[in-house]
Amino acid sequence: MRIIIVGASGTMGSYLSAAFEKDHQLVKVNSKGGDLQVDITSPESIERMYKQAGSFDALICTAGPTYVGPWKTLTDKEFRKGVEGKMMGQINLVLIGQHYINSKGSFTLITGALTYEPQLHFANASAANGAVEAFVRAAAIELENGIRINAVSPTVIEDSPQYFPFFPGDIPVTMKQLEYGFRKSVFGAITGQVIKPY
Amino acid sequence: MRIIIVGASGTMGSYLSAAFEKDHQLVKVNSKGGDLQVDITSPESIERMYKQAGSFDALICTAGPTYVGPWKTLTDKEFRKGVEGKMMGQINLVLIGQHYINSKGSFTLITGALTYEPQLHFANASAANGAVEAFVRAAAIELENGIRINAVSPTVIEDSPQYFPFFPGDIPVTMKQLEYGFRKSVFGAITGQVIKPY
Repeated sequence: MRIIIVGASGTMGSYLSAAFEKDHQLVKVNSKGGDLQVDITSPESIERMYKQAGSFDALICTAGPTYVGPWKTLTDKEFRKGVEGKMMGQINLVLIGQHYINSKGSFTLITGALTYEPQLHFANASAANGAVEAFVRAAAIELENGIRINAVSPTVIEDSPQYFPFFPGDIPVTMKQLEYGFRKSVFGAITGQVIKPY
Repeated sequence: MRIIIVGASGTMGSYLSAAFEKDHQLVKVNSKGGDLQVDITSPESIERMYKQAGSFDALICTAGPTYVGPWKTLTDKEFRKGVEGKMMGQINLVLIGQHYINSKGSFTLITGALTYEPQLHFANASAANGAVEAFVRAAAIELENGIRINAVSPTVIEDSPQYFPFFPGDIPVTMKQLEYGFRKSVFGAITGQVIKPY
């Protein structure tokens, strides 16, 4: 299978790349470096990335920038980081990618437990996650030619201990659990689902 | 109670205005006409509206423009209608309004069943709803001084029969049920909830 991984050099992306590259052909995409570069906040950059990538069977996105910070000074300006990044970045990967992906291909996006279990300072990520999850359900009934779409929604992840203090009481998801979540979406048959790999 | 109703001249807003104006002082806000005008896609316009409105105990928003149309030609451009309107419009009403609302006040936003029960051509509304609902849960743990926030999530509403053909199998919510949903949020004590008035 030929798989595009957006955010391939990140904490999640590098783990997934190592796990999948033995059995599959990967196209590693980052904002800088990697096989190809993309700025997911730019539809033009996404279109260019797909044209360069060529034929593919699955797209995995682990890139999702959001704003983290105090609520009282939160304005439209800060909120745009997650709107343009984790939300519209991922939505545009699908809206544009639908015209490039192979039949029976799949899109797997990243969300997170903040959709339902908010933590202080993360309202922007909660909103972006909620948008992407509802979009995934809607896209699943629209995509044709057997193309599927799911989201993987972990809690805080094992290899990002710097976030643990911000997620009191959240049991970290192991990198192996995270991998299982993506495996279920990419190699399974489900669509329109939010996979909680824990 | 002094209540700002944004979208007061719309189908939902005019019904709620008639129901609440006997017992409460309403500030009816629309894009055109009404007591005050606001363009919810503009943070500056929202700020101006709050300055003009003065002291208030509750804000109700029934305004939520989104794009309705075919999936295959859906791009970032069309998607912005719901991002700027139903999503960021409502989120900015809260981010800005938190600095103007009275202690123990409440924000009540509008979402809809499309968050979980998508219909063809409404992916933009699904995403906007999902964002607003997750934002409501996140905002509820951030707002201080007893300020509450909820969303009301109806299916297609009784007084909008022109939408019935697009929502096969959705049992319409009566206007009275919708009113109950808003009553529960505005006059009750809950926060961070998505109220399904059916």
